Amino acid sequence: MSAFTKLQQQFKRLSRIQHAAAICGWDQAAMMPEGGNNARGEALAELSVISHQLLTAPELDDWFEEAHEEITDALDIANLATMKRAWQHATLLPQDLVEATSIANSRCEHAWRQQRKNNDWQGYNTNLKEVVRLAREQAGYFAEHAGLNRYDALMDIYEPGMSSHKVDNLFGEIKTWLPGLIDEAEEIQKTRQVITPQGPFPTEQQRQLGLNIMGLLGFDFQHGRLDTSTHPFCGGVPEDVRITTRYDEQNFMSALLGVIHETGHARYEQNLPRTLAGLPVGQARSMGVHESQSLFFEMQLARSLPFTRLIAPRIAEAFQRQQDPAFSADNLYQLNTRVKRGFIRVDADEVTYPAHVILRYEIERELIEGGIDTEHIPDLWNEKMESLLGLSTAGKNDIGCMQDIHWAGGAFGYFPSYTLGAMYAAQLFNAAQQHLPGLEEKIGNGDLGGLFEWLNKAIWSKASTLSTDELMRQATGEALNSHYFKQHLQQRYLA
Amino acid sequence: MSAFTKLQQQFKRLSRIQHAAAICGWDQAAMMPEGGNNARGEALAELSVISHQLLTAPELDDWFEEAHEEITDALDIANLATMKRAWQHATLLPQDLVEATSIANSRCEHAWRQQRKNNDWQGYNTNLKEVVRLAREQAGYFAEHAGLNRYDALMDIYEPGMSSHKVDNLFGEIKTWLPGLIDEAEEIQKTRQVITPQGPFPTEQQRQLGLNIMGLLGFDFQHGRLDTSTHPFCGGVPEDVRITTRYDEQNFMSALLGVIHETGHARYEQNLPRTLAGLPVGQARSMGVHESQSLFFEMQLARSLPFTRLIAPRIAEAFQRQQDPAFSADNLYQLNTRVKRGFIRVDADEVTYPAHVILRYEIERELIEGGIDTEHIPDLWNEKMESLLGLSTAGKNDIGCMQDIHWAGGAFGYFPSYTLGAMYAAQLFNAAQQHLPGLEEKIGNGDLGGLFEWLNKAIWSKASTLSTDELMRQATGEALNSHYFKQHLQQRYLA
Ligand SMILES: [Zn+2]
Ligand SMILES: [Zn+2]
Repeated sequence: MSAFTKLQQQFKRLSRIQHAAAICGWDQAAMMPEGGNNARGEALAELSVISHQLLTAPELDDWFEEAHEEITDALDIANLATMKRAWQHATLLPQDLVEATSIANSRCEHAWRQQRKNNDWQGYNTNLKEVVRLAREQAGYFAEHAGLNRYDALMDIYEPGMSSHKVDNLFGEIKTWLPGLIDEAEEIQKTRQVITPQGPFPTEQQRQLGLNIMGLLGFDFQHGRLDTSTHPFCGGVPEDVRITTRYDEQNFMSALLGVIHETGHARYEQNLPRTLAGLPVGQARSMGVHESQSLFFEMQLARSLPFTRLIAPRIAEAFQRQQDPAFSADNLYQLNTRVKRGFIRVDADEVTYPAHVILRYEIERELIEGGIDTEHIPDLWNEKMESLLGLSTAGKNDIGCMQDIHWAGGAFGYFPSYTLGAMYAAQLFNAAQQHLPGLEEKIGNGDLGGLFEWLNKAIWSKASTLSTDELMRQATGEALNSHYFKQHLQQRYLA
Repeated sequence: MSAFTKLQQQFKRLSRIQHAAAICGWDQAAMMPEGGNNARGEALAELSVISHQLLTAPELDDWFEEAHEEITDALDIANLATMKRAWQHATLLPQDLVEATSIANSRCEHAWRQQRKNNDWQGYNTNLKEVVRLAREQAGYFAEHAGLNRYDALMDIYEPGMSSHKVDNLFGEIKTWLPGLIDEAEEIQKTRQVITPQGPFPTEQQRQLGLNIMGLLGFDFQHGRLDTSTHPFCGGVPEDVRITTRYDEQNFMSALLGVIHETGHARYEQNLPRTLAGLPVGQARSMGVHESQSLFFEMQLARSLPFTRLIAPRIAEAFQRQQDPAFSADNLYQLNTRVKRGFIRVDADEVTYPAHVILRYEIERELIEGGIDTEHIPDLWNEKMESLLGLSTAGKNDIGCMQDIHWAGGAFGYFPSYTLGAMYAAQLFNAAQQHLPGLEEKIGNGDLGGLFEWLNKAIWSKASTLSTDELMRQATGEALNSHYFKQHLQQRYLA
């Protein structure tokens, strides 16, 4: 058996262990009674030890050495490269650093849950300092190996091939027009009347509506489920994708848009090529590209006027409100495109969202590069919120720099993915419009097959066989360009 | 670290992998969409490979060698013995035999699902022959190692310490009075009027009733759940027990008694000592003892008149049938103690059930010992059904020897556990009556705490720290004695 084949078998074994971990993780969030948590935590930790052992088995050194002499085909080369990347991430770090990081991150994240409620920046900072110190050390190993600076090396984990130089250009460009666009959009919307639908909207009716719209969006129920969890996510495995939402009986729209968002993630997973199943090259390209699919569904499609017109009757029917003016397509559209600056990222609309991401990016980059220390975060946060959104977080760290779990858990370099995803989504939707004449009309008629076929061909079926730049070039004719995102916001919010 | 400690750590690692397998197995039966089945099968197979590797790691030889020099305490000795037993079961068989068996059993079981429907004995027999051949070969390895005959060596997997000599005595005794008792019971019941409750009984109401009765029976919802699956079972892990049932909208009693049965299994699991968690000595004593707990709940408790009086109002309320005479305690009691000889084991009442088990035991013992071959099964089955229940299965193998999954899947030696469980349960209930004066009245009042406390002390908390004989002796004053089972049937069915 060739070394290349042995490597593929090893990675398929690994993916089967990760299958078990994914299902147990989903169960923990969606099904498990509280008392099962300790035993589950131990089981998941054991699976991750086994995974680590499979990924760092000593024989892999030789296999990687030999394998690249054995292959010439482009797909094989991409396949080998993605396996090698995963292997290097697992082997580059000294074991004691991995353990110290895991302990520090857990401690910080655990304490943060309470500290955030108490607006206890001092307490949080004590732990965060150590998290940052270890993240810098880890980043140092990755950076040295890859010839990148530290922050870029971390961002590369989530968004391979992206650099802070490119992000600076993209986000810098956004900063030149975003605050003005927010002002203008708020001004325009001031005079518009929006009726808030009045609940209660029973959970079971919301769930049925969610399933109905998932069906419309092509979710494959032979290979997935919808369930409930405190924090919505898309989990499971490509053969069996588990999405979750949570229900608010006063506001059905939040769960519905959440379901649509996760359905975007799910369709990407469900349509990854089965021929590459279990291999890193068969996985989604990056966090940003993954988010581009969920945002394509949620922002480009679901909040558009044609799609709102398509589903408004289904929504009204689900709650028996066919006569209620709050359920008219026009009102629902106004509701779903409302711009309102606020403190909390996860509650932000698509117009103000990039501001939240840009400020986090600018701070975490400096933090990892060593330009600032954790002490500087609250003031910088306040300053940037003032400048981007005109809001002050002075003394309000709970709704400022302590609101996210990411840093508490040691995830630096992830935040840009959200806005990169929004930009990819806008650029992809624009390309889809070029390729599919009469797209808006088709959407309004519920004729979505062509659009999904195009997405499947352009993105889903490609998995990680192409670099993100090449993926975007083949799909849209050019690498990521923030112009399409700006155009999208202008057309939707300044019209 | 001592070898004994290293062994315990290894078995705890193993139990964590088995935790993942248990949850993934539960999910497969209760949650998974069909399309996920192939990937799930591969993931579960991988977990079982990992388990086998942990259990057969070469260093265990030395550890077992050294460990028994290190310990003197009775619990440690039991602990080591149960680990050693599991290790030997995993290491005694040559790997190629394990693989051949797994393939033959899967093939036979898979084909059986259709062959049974077609009453295709010839087709089934072709595969079954090979399953039996391999089971004999496996049994040979176990038998040689343990100094037992082949059938006893297989039965010992499920019911450690039990022998065909003991079973012959127990079952032989039952055969002397069972056919007469069945006749008599049917004669007595002939003149009794029983009203069948008329459905439909909506699934959700049945589920709520099940949850209600689970609560009454002390099921710990912080450490377990109730769900739905085609074949009801008790799965998960002691910290998080997953029981399932299935609902028939025309007959609520079948799901309800199923839930009560699985609750008996569940309480055993939930009350295994946490101090021994993850170790073989901390697991349930045997399949027979496990079944004794479910039958204690279902047969001894739930089908008794006092318990029926206790829950009849809850049942009537669940379906809003407070005025329906079919829902009176007396009628429900008649319904749940109806004796009716039939072809199908899983549909049998507690009086005719042992006949189904005894005939299977007698056939499978000869099959494994080589006294008969698979060709002889249909005639023997027919003959024994005639003699025990007066029913002929000539030409009706689908409702005769092809009805069970056990042999198709290579599980020989399991059947006795069902009736051993019924006998343990009767003997335990009798002992509980001696220890707890006024037990019947307490049950009628819903005052079940003392009974569960007694079961916990006698059985649940003991896990596998005692042999089954010793467990029964400490709980009831004597080893298993079929007298109590006979007495129970006489009191309930001939009164
Ligand atoms: Zn997302
Ligand atoms: Zn049972």
